Amino acid sequence: MSEVRAKATLAQEAAAAMNKLTTEQKNTALSAMADALTAREEEIIAANADDLQRGRDNGTSTSLLDRLALNSERIAGIAEGLRQIVELPDPVGELLESFQRPNGMKVEKRRVPLGVIGMIYEARPNVTVDAAGLCLKTGNCVVLRGGSAALSSNRKIIEILKDAMKSTSLPVDAIQLIEDSDRASVNEMLKLNGLLDVVIPRGGAALIRNVVENATVPVIETGAGICHVFVDDTADMAMAADIAFNAKVQRPSVCNSIETLLVHRDIAESQLSALVKPMLEANVELRGCERAKSILGDIRSATDEDFSTEYNDYIINVKVVDGLDEALSHIRRYGTKHSECIVTETGGHAGRFLQEVDAAAVYHNVSTRFTDGFEFGFGAEIGISTQKLHARGPMGLPALTSTKYRITGNGQIRG
Amino acid sequence: MSEVRAKATLAQEAAAAMNKLTTEQKNTALSAMADALTAREEEIIAANADDLQRGRDNGTSTSLLDRLALNSERIAGIAEGLRQIVELPDPVGELLESFQRPNGMKVEKRRVPLGVIGMIYEARPNVTVDAAGLCLKTGNCVVLRGGSAALSSNRKIIEILKDAMKSTSLPVDAIQLIEDSDRASVNEMLKLNGLLDVVIPRGGAALIRNVVENATVPVIETGAGICHVFVDDTADMAMAADIAFNAKVQRPSVCNSIETLLVHRDIAESQLSALVKPMLEANVELRGCERAKSILGDIRSATDEDFSTEYNDYIINVKVVDGLDEALSHIRRYGTKHSECIVTETGGHAGRFLQEVDAAAVYHNVSTRFTDGFEFGFGAEIGISTQKLHARGPMGLPALTSTKYRITGNGQIRG
Repeated sequence: MSEVRAKATLAQEAAAAMNKLTTEQKNTALSAMADALTAREEEIIAANADDLQRGRDNGTSTSLLDRLALNSERIAGIAEGLRQIVELPDPVGELLESFQRPNGMKVEKRRVPLGVIGMIYEARPNVTVDAAGLCLKTGNCVVLRGGSAALSSNRKIIEILKDAMKSTSLPVDAIQLIEDSDRASVNEMLKLNGLLDVVIPRGGAALIRNVVENATVPVIETGAGICHVFVDDTADMAMAADIAFNAKVQRPSVCNSIETLLVHRDIAESQLSALVKPMLEANVELRGCERAKSILGDIRSATDEDFSTEYNDYIINVKVVDGLDEALSHIRRYGTKHSECIVTETGGHAGRFLQEVDAAAVYHNVSTRFTDGFEFGFGAEIGISTQKLHARGPMGLPALTSTKYRITGNGQIRG
Repeated sequence: MSEVRAKATLAQEAAAAMNKLTTEQKNTALSAMADALTAREEEIIAANADDLQRGRDNGTSTSLLDRLALNSERIAGIAEGLRQIVELPDPVGELLESFQRPNGMKVEKRRVPLGVIGMIYEARPNVTVDAAGLCLKTGNCVVLRGGSAALSSNRKIIEILKDAMKSTSLPVDAIQLIEDSDRASVNEMLKLNGLLDVVIPRGGAALIRNVVENATVPVIETGAGICHVFVDDTADMAMAADIAFNAKVQRPSVCNSIETLLVHRDIAESQLSALVKPMLEANVELRGCERAKSILGDIRSATDEDFSTEYNDYIINVKVVDGLDEALSHIRRYGTKHSECIVTETGGHAGRFLQEVDAAAVYHNVSTRFTDGFEFGFGAEIGISTQKLHARGPMGLPALTSTKYRITGNGQIRG
């Protein structure tokens, strides 16, 4: 049996025991795991040094090495993340519906764990702990397949987490780490119907596309964000400039930052230069439509491909539109249904935008950067879903649960 | 452009208009569609006669021909189904969460249509109307791909529905029928990410397997049911016999009927013959484990394959188990997580069964046959989900919706 199948089978066998745990048992274990990470930080740092050395030998970029690197402070932060998960309410067992039918049978719908969750992600070892913590808190088992660049770190982290679990009520088989770094191990996970209940990819566009295109196991897609801010003719222009700047510049590398600024033609001539001035000062590259170029001068033309690109960088497209309808149709064509914003003082336009834009999160006079589990008050998040089934937008703990109908009676049969 | 892509594109373009409709506009249209079906029943019956003739020419079985056949009474029933959908509450717009964050921004989570739903199903033309009605009521567009055996009937039904829509607020492009009977048209639908938001298969195991294995569009699986009744040692034996008989015999062809009866060893010797007597009288074939055979005499052995088969027929496996634990492990191994029942007077056993069995619906002293949207009081159902994501068990109208976060503020930016 392959490593993937063997470990997924162990996880599936542990699922029944996980399903029986109380919230207190799970929290006790998560706290012990957090303590173990800090107590054994030197072992983690040593294992991480192996990954970093291998990365340098392979010519890995400085920014990737930085995301891979662990030190005492980062390990403390990771452990603190686990303790925050302890503080979150446990969704498992929550009563969602309860009713009695005319024949006397009582029906309850309660939240239950999903079962076994497959996580496929890239090189950041903090995801290993985050994902394990969120899955265990919700009574799930988890099969982790992280990037091979972090394998030594992940192996040590999982060893420490499992050691800590041994003295708790949690079955140690509830966490599995796939060590096979061949891409075939990912593709095998994607077909493990019956052993994995869901696969969640976290990473770049290529990783997510591979999962969506090849998985037969149900997927929660945490996808790309081509997001927009539309500045309407009645916008408070200082607010609009602040929101556009924040949505582009505060952290360009994340999915809820914007790639395109749409501006109403009636205020473009008078306001566009002021709107983009803070971005220019922050060395953001502008690319414009013809009308924007005629106002802003010597900037590169924004092509169809530009409007379709998630830059994750200090680049923004600027497009002048005839009004709300053109803004809506541009977003419909190029948006990825993630986060979209209108800045306007016209209530009717805000209402239409919030109603008609098809996205996980639609904003009126608020930066798109708030599409985030912490910012919504959900605590830690497993990702931001860009699909429409099961969960949409920032996913808190309930997104890691399913439901079950429990029906009780005294001999009801169907006539 | 292929027929499938062209029609899915039309549906996607109609989605924005569908999303703006009021409940009253949708209900008015559905009522008009119901009226049109009865008013033009003769045209439907004539088109259906073509399908029936073709079926007879191709040697289609009598039972399949019966499922395909439409007459005045059946058309009235189909139209009545549409009118029942009118009566159901509209989930679109429902406020699911509402909170204000410390920075003052207000967050609302509301139900929204999924967008465009692809339905892939077999030869029953009533599904065409059901699916169209449920999808339109929830503000969705639908691309229908029914079995080729019903193509003439489906074509006429869709013509009538679209004619009726012309005098209403609904965009006629919201319903699309794929007429290409080549299987390649199904497989093309399964890959239409960006045009279809979800695919729902309804039909036999082979149809569902093809969809699950090949779809890159998210799928709601409405799958097989290998369901069990476990008769515990403290069961009320008259109740147990009634429930087992009902769960097997009342309608063996459906997914929530049972395939295996599990009986506690301590009451097997004294009660098993009485438990199965009503089934024998209804000409149900018994297949047994060794212990069951030693009590029941000359019946066929139940093999591993038998325990893994959804008979959908007058056949049942009988297995004597050592108690609750063996019943649970048998269900874990052979069940399809659909509907499972324990008959017992021991509260602790009922509690464990309801907690530990991983299925969409778990029953204590109630027949499994109630896993059904109508029986749960949801009204018409689009199917019974056997997956754990999005919807599980009977799917009423809310299963055909997604959610959207709407955030309003006065210039909030992220620090």
